[in-house]
Amino acid sequence: MPTLSSRGLDIGASPIRNLLPFARKAKEQGKHIYHLNIGQPDIATPAPALKAIKELKENIVSYGPSEGLPALRETVASYYNRFHAELSADDLYVTTGASEAILFTFLSICDNGDEIIIPEPFYANYLGFAHLTNIKIVPLTSRLEEEFKLPNTEDFEKLINTKTKAIFLCNPGNPTGQLYSAEQLERLIHVVKKHRLFLIVDEVYREFCYENKFTSILSFKGIEDNVIVIDSISKVFSSCGARVGYLISKNKSFLQSVTKYAQLRLSPPYFGQILALSCYENCSEYIHKAKEEYRYRRDVLFDEITKIGTIKHYKPAAAFYNIVELPVKDAEEFCKWLLTDFEYDGSTLMMAPANGFYCNKAIGKQQVRIAYVLNSADLKTSMKCLKVALSKYPECQ
Amino acid sequence: MPTLSSRGLDIGASPIRNLLPFARKAKEQGKHIYHLNIGQPDIATPAPALKAIKELKENIVSYGPSEGLPALRETVASYYNRFHAELSADDLYVTTGASEAILFTFLSICDNGDEIIIPEPFYANYLGFAHLTNIKIVPLTSRLEEEFKLPNTEDFEKLINTKTKAIFLCNPGNPTGQLYSAEQLERLIHVVKKHRLFLIVDEVYREFCYENKFTSILSFKGIEDNVIVIDSISKVFSSCGARVGYLISKNKSFLQSVTKYAQLRLSPPYFGQILALSCYENCSEYIHKAKEEYRYRRDVLFDEITKIGTIKHYKPAAAFYNIVELPVKDAEEFCKWLLTDFEYDGSTLMMAPANGFYCNKAIGKQQVRIAYVLNSADLKTSMKCLKVALSKYPECQ
Repeated sequence: MPTLSSRGLDIGASPIRNLLPFARKAKEQGKHIYHLNIGQPDIATPAPALKAIKELKENIVSYGPSEGLPALRETVASYYNRFHAELSADDLYVTTGASEAILFTFLSICDNGDEIIIPEPFYANYLGFAHLTNIKIVPLTSRLEEEFKLPNTEDFEKLINTKTKAIFLCNPGNPTGQLYSAEQLERLIHVVKKHRLFLIVDEVYREFCYENKFTSILSFKGIEDNVIVIDSISKVFSSCGARVGYLISKNKSFLQSVTKYAQLRLSPPYFGQILALSCYENCSEYIHKAKEEYRYRRDVLFDEITKIGTIKHYKPAAAFYNIVELPVKDAEEFCKWLLTDFEYDGSTLMMAPANGFYCNKAIGKQQVRIAYVLNSADLKTSMKCLKVALSKYPECQ
Repeated sequence: MPTLSSRGLDIGASPIRNLLPFARKAKEQGKHIYHLNIGQPDIATPAPALKAIKELKENIVSYGPSEGLPALRETVASYYNRFHAELSADDLYVTTGASEAILFTFLSICDNGDEIIIPEPFYANYLGFAHLTNIKIVPLTSRLEEEFKLPNTEDFEKLINTKTKAIFLCNPGNPTGQLYSAEQLERLIHVVKKHRLFLIVDEVYREFCYENKFTSILSFKGIEDNVIVIDSISKVFSSCGARVGYLISKNKSFLQSVTKYAQLRLSPPYFGQILALSCYENCSEYIHKAKEEYRYRRDVLFDEITKIGTIKHYKPAAAFYNIVELPVKDAEEFCKWLLTDFEYDGSTLMMAPANGFYCNKAIGKQQVRIAYVLNSADLKTSMKCLKVALSKYPECQ
């Protein structure tokens, strides 16, 4: 039998998806599962966008341009005006989800062994793409006790060496729900300029900010060559399966490199781009409604968790995630137990163990990420379920 | 300004797309261009499949399973029965085009510096994905004079060393239009078994064989752990923009590794999968018609090229490509000249310089790939155009 690659064997399975076999078994046993483990919104995709797909007249589904459909690039560039970004269509490439935007970015700015600094906890797949591209992720821990605020600039600077190519932020944050302020970003901008680093910002959740105004990294002047933005329609327009994301930069040399990778995979998906194009037409009302729904759920979730009493938590400022610390030794074991050994009124719940979002696994060992992608009634019941589970968990007896 | 990666700077731009700026300029000048340069079929996508997209009832475009929609995996597994493949849905993953299937394969079987042997000329993007994954492609030259027949097993064996992980074939061949026989494949199977190598076969063009019957590598018994097949709906169902491909293997360890990469990019495009699912319903008639159309075009093209008299060529047995040798010193220069300095009745033609399909660039220097993806009338006119061009090309005076 031929042998496989070490890299293929070494790459970790998705921590969010690790529990899936146990969930499948629980479902086979007839249990209902409240899915708080994955960022799959339950809000309907914009109806006019679904209609646009149905009204397509083309009779050949052809390759499009590798950079994406010109009309979509122009539309999205205009959309960014509301964030004071001043983009042209040339600054924006359509990618197959934000995933591909991350891959192209890593490939274009880092060689084998180069380093990228990322505040942890962070979206676990950043680590997967770093593994794929032989890049070292250097984590800088942010803390639940401080509501995951951006670490100090001095702490970033301590980690910078000759191998460092970029600082990578997720703002608003997955898995933390934190929102970085203009002042915090400004301080970091000085660092990347001083050390000639790229500043990559994943702004996928930008539309869901509940307290303060969102500041896009694209609104700052004088750092155009350093800034790379990752975006996607998946969350804002509840269109995860369309596989449409964006890679945005005003650094022409960077985009030239990206073009070569984009040509290699030929083109992004056509139907998803048609859907995306219509998503932006009169999108303000749709986005406002979605945001208010998530805000309401966040408040419900916050109150319900507070009522349980034994969970360390905070009120997230943005996105639709929350990291909480449970009164258990090992949150991953607890999440597994919820699926294999627990039920309450025929139901249980699924959460994402937070150790998958940390390089320093020990810090996240008692934490889980809760995605509030269920309606408020389901959220309430699932938190009731969690309360009972904690009272019955053998370790908590 | 921050610096880019060497790999991003080093990776070659797509040779097929290199001439695009000149083509754009020619169009701006009002020239009509016959596009024989790219494998974008002009045949309509199956109408029932386009209808299936329009009849979708879902109101949320969600992530699907990373391995692809179960219904599609089952349907495609059954489709392979006609090639004596005996697949189950578990043996088949849906990918974002054949491109992603190639990427996942390279990542899963090769570490940095490992080698894959490929008969050249080969599909240029194999080289791009090898560059992305730090793999060395070892070419084994096949020749126009021999209608690009499979090189001898001894020649393959001479190239095998401890770094060799796989032999990679494209059957039927892009860019050559060659078809390997069961006997030829059988001989190669002995080589891969003896040296414990993977045998990757890109069978994207399997439905377009004009002389002899197609033999899928999946029909051979006893080499299940060695075989990996790359497939796609792009060419067979004229659905390039859907971005749906497949990765097929009965090697469970290999698929376990692929699963991790598949999870990393979350899921393949939803709409493309819905389109694909319907493509296979009653597909025999659609495929038969497409095949007969391509056969007719192939014959027309062969006759027209023969009439020109100064071009070295052969009658391809499959796919919709032909490599021909022109009476010019540098085919790439000639292709550029066709766009910049030539026109005939307001028209010119675009072909793919074949040096992009060779590692040994010198061998392909006088060759071009012609894709017969235009109707027969356009093919005739474009060959007329080529004849005039050759008579006017300064070097041929």
